[in-house]
Amino acid sequence: MSAKIAISIGDYNGVGPEIALRAHPQIALTCTPLYCCDRALLEAAAKRLHVSLPDDLISVPLNLPFEIRPGVVEAQSGVYSYASFMKGVELCEEGEVSALVTLPIHKEAWAKAGLSFVGHTDALRRHFKQEAIMMLGCESMYVALFTEHIPLREVALHVSQKELTRFLMDFVAALGPSKVGVLGLNPHAGDHGVLGDEERAIEAAIAECNAALGAPIFEGPLVPDVAFTPRVRAHYRYFVAMYHDQGLAPLKALYFDESINVSLGLPIVRTSVDHGTAFDIAYQNRADLQSYLNAVHAALDFSQPK
Amino acid sequence: MSAKIAISIGDYNGVGPEIALRAHPQIALTCTPLYCCDRALLEAAAKRLHVSLPDDLISVPLNLPFEIRPGVVEAQSGVYSYASFMKGVELCEEGEVSALVTLPIHKEAWAKAGLSFVGHTDALRRHFKQEAIMMLGCESMYVALFTEHIPLREVALHVSQKELTRFLMDFVAALGPSKVGVLGLNPHAGDHGVLGDEERAIEAAIAECNAALGAPIFEGPLVPDVAFTPRVRAHYRYFVAMYHDQGLAPLKALYFDESINVSLGLPIVRTSVDHGTAFDIAYQNRADLQSYLNAVHAALDFSQPK
Repeated sequence: MSAKIAISIGDYNGVGPEIALRAHPQIALTCTPLYCCDRALLEAAAKRLHVSLPDDLISVPLNLPFEIRPGVVEAQSGVYSYASFMKGVELCEEGEVSALVTLPIHKEAWAKAGLSFVGHTDALRRHFKQEAIMMLGCESMYVALFTEHIPLREVALHVSQKELTRFLMDFVAALGPSKVGVLGLNPHAGDHGVLGDEERAIEAAIAECNAALGAPIFEGPLVPDVAFTPRVRAHYRYFVAMYHDQGLAPLKALYFDESINVSLGLPIVRTSVDHGTAFDIAYQNRADLQSYLNAVHAALDFSQPK
Repeated sequence: MSAKIAISIGDYNGVGPEIALRAHPQIALTCTPLYCCDRALLEAAAKRLHVSLPDDLISVPLNLPFEIRPGVVEAQSGVYSYASFMKGVELCEEGEVSALVTLPIHKEAWAKAGLSFVGHTDALRRHFKQEAIMMLGCESMYVALFTEHIPLREVALHVSQKELTRFLMDFVAALGPSKVGVLGLNPHAGDHGVLGDEERAIEAAIAECNAALGAPIFEGPLVPDVAFTPRVRAHYRYFVAMYHDQGLAPLKALYFDESINVSLGLPIVRTSVDHGTAFDIAYQNRADLQSYLNAVHAALDFSQPK
């Protein structure tokens, strides 16, 4: 019997249900997906898309009201997508499934529903009351973010040996012993202190972690604008970026359609597509399935014991 | 008669002379290169490389001593590469050539020679006593840098409507009326002020420039990690990045071997390869010619009247 994976359906006014339905035949070849939503929702979505509901489809009911209105930002769909997500978390915690794959929610719909989380990762942190590492990427290249959704002007203030050491140790604990490239913060990685000196803290954190691990797991600080060139990329599957756009701009330039989001360091494994609800193309049979297929694949991969 | 282009030879202990000699037959098809160095240097380099000196090669003598010592950082080669560069600038100022293409100098060799410039662009600014815009890229995509070699922590302090407006007006004056994508500073371009508010100054500068120009030349602020995805890239050949790695990390991830460096907004047109002296492979007939070939092509392109 193949591994069970929970799928939260995302905002039903966006592309979530369409992606789940259209990709089902493919993902059912590698796992048993449990869709966290009422069967009637999938039936209504299938009808809109002019596709038939697969025979082998398993849904976990939420027993909540819904009405599909493509592209509409509203409290009802916000409540539903949150309930779907939390049902997926519950299934993971109960050991019913190996991992959770989340389809995109709409942040404003959550806000209208009175939910104050910035997104899935934030909600997971507050549910589990612990830090999580946000990593994005694909088979070729993953980037973990040391800082995430903060203004650029605040980034340098967060780069300390202590905080980075903690992050890197959490990262290796979640990932297993893979070689990791750690980026510098400044242009030319500070150019020996001429263009900024945070690289000293980064160097010290790398040295501290490698000493603690007894192995040269972490390498760097890498020169940020060279780290993602083909020659350097060839040496690393995993990178740690000091800030959001440092890692994600090169990643998305190279692998936009393939990328997924992974939450590491939590009691459960959760992966996600790396795109939004795409309200503008909802229920038009136009959504790209690649990121979702990769998210399911990564959920299976990262839930294997390391 | 084809356009004349001055070529400064770079640090002769690096890959400069090799690239000039090996690429000569190709570039001589599109322009008349004037090599700013003594003929004896090219002869010595050709001998080391086991190639013969082309018959149609024109050199502009410097009458300076030299001794090729591959990979050595020294004052003599620093002096020579600076003199070669300044000879090229002189030929441009005298109208002898349409543009200057610079091969890589070694910053520490310049320092040993008592030259305090950070690089070519810095030397040009001080020679002409005016600002220059640093733009890197290739036919597919160019990125101009609003801030360059400063610590990341200082970047946000420089983003003001006044300074950016001046920069953008200088940029369009040098470039002609091409559509330009201007990046935001913060993750998600600030997400309506939640993740930083410098985007308000960027928006205001864009509006001010477009109003002054009477045309929607500048667009943005673009979300930094989405700006270089294939779908957005398709809309722009030119980008303005707020800081060094924001523009150069995606550029080099996508187009490392093809990229070149252009100095805009000066009385002369200068382009450059986007790599260093590569001391480790000097005089081994292994240097990649692509960036140099593109730099010559761009020199011809950007020296055309707009």
